[in-house]
Amino acid sequence: MAGADRVEVLAFDVFGTVVDWYGSIAREVDALGLDVDGGEFALAWRAGYKPAMQRVQSGELGWTHLDDLHRGILDQLLERFAITSLSEADKRHLNRVWHRLDPWPDAVEGLTRLKRRFTLCTLSNGNLGLLTNMAKRAGLPWDCILSAEVFRQYKPHPDTYLGVADVFDVPPAAVMMVAAHQEDLDSARCHGLRTAYIERPHEFGMAASKDVSGALDNDLHAASLVGLAERLGC
Amino acid sequence: MAGADRVEVLAFDVFGTVVDWYGSIAREVDALGLDVDGGEFALAWRAGYKPAMQRVQSGELGWTHLDDLHRGILDQLLERFAITSLSEADKRHLNRVWHRLDPWPDAVEGLTRLKRRFTLCTLSNGNLGLLTNMAKRAGLPWDCILSAEVFRQYKPHPDTYLGVADVFDVPPAAVMMVAAHQEDLDSARCHGLRTAYIERPHEFGMAASKDVSGALDNDLHAASLVGLAERLGC
Repeated sequence: MAGADRVEVLAFDVFGTVVDWYGSIAREVDALGLDVDGGEFALAWRAGYKPAMQRVQSGELGWTHLDDLHRGILDQLLERFAITSLSEADKRHLNRVWHRLDPWPDAVEGLTRLKRRFTLCTLSNGNLGLLTNMAKRAGLPWDCILSAEVFRQYKPHPDTYLGVADVFDVPPAAVMMVAAHQEDLDSARCHGLRTAYIERPHEFGMAASKDVSGALDNDLHAASLVGLAERLGC
Repeated sequence: MAGADRVEVLAFDVFGTVVDWYGSIAREVDALGLDVDGGEFALAWRAGYKPAMQRVQSGELGWTHLDDLHRGILDQLLERFAITSLSEADKRHLNRVWHRLDPWPDAVEGLTRLKRRFTLCTLSNGNLGLLTNMAKRAGLPWDCILSAEVFRQYKPHPDTYLGVADVFDVPPAAVMMVAAHQEDLDSARCHGLRTAYIERPHEFGMAASKDVSGALDNDLHAASLVGLAERLGC
């Protein structure tokens, strides 16, 4: 890749790119023995994410941790699915499933190899506590956890992408955004970052089909984080 | 310690508590072969730190990375010590010595042991990039790097201490501030945090004497971070 030798920082999207939110939530919800399909519940919870963030981005809500947005969506889902058997403690525990997401099988090895040569940070809309608890449980070896919470803006606000370059005092082109979502990479590129697309065909479950072709103008394209490490010579 | 079983997060002061700023800077300045004593230079640089932060705290300066405050102090010192031999690249490199501070000999082992049981974060006035580069070079195994930069206030502003509790969604008493500076611990206690004093008798050099008795109302007192791990059963 032209210019890859100048990349110093890899900034990772987390939900879907590094961890398997669908499978983790589906398994935990199924294990609760509620009268609902865990996979359907996971998809519905995630579907509430963008509209909830939009309420913050529009100014309707002040700055809000993603944990609290998740809880608001959860309460609506419990009502929609007519689930009444959970205590307040149960609901609090279930809401923290987002702290307990399992990494994709290649994530820890890929990150460990990439860490030898690059500074690795998260750039996620997840809050710092969520991302820290997730990393500690899953063994994700971040050098630094960055979040919308640091910049007080959710992706795709420019302050988030440019904020990574500012934190590390490097030009935007020295930062490579790594994500399984083309729109995240498109926003990053728009602000001068390099981009790497990671294929996660099962992000929405084994049954769902996801287009993982990625755009031609991504700087790199890899089937996994181990694949990314190989492409970058780590 | 009463209540130690409820502590979940250890928040560490960094300069002086985890890393040896005096020795690291003195060695690097001495190695430059300038006509100045490295130890004297280190002390003068550090002495400019509180007045520079005060300019931010008072509103005279907007939010400023510690890297930039350090550079302003460095430029004054070079003039005061009549050092004219450094190029702009040399000055930039020297200013980043704060990213290259060596840990105290007990720090990596102590943190590694404490990490098994607690969430470990920094709570430093150093900026995120500085703290990340330092941790990567020195092998400091933080779970999360928190900084004045996250809260847009320098310690001892309440937003910094209470900010740690907010990030991890725990009561202030579930956070223990760990520092070699009594005033940092006094501020933390004032906002409900637990406190652990670490003795660093040589923070200002082998020749200087530092009172390391600590206040009686600290929750814990240890001679090192390994000692803290032992006190906390890690």
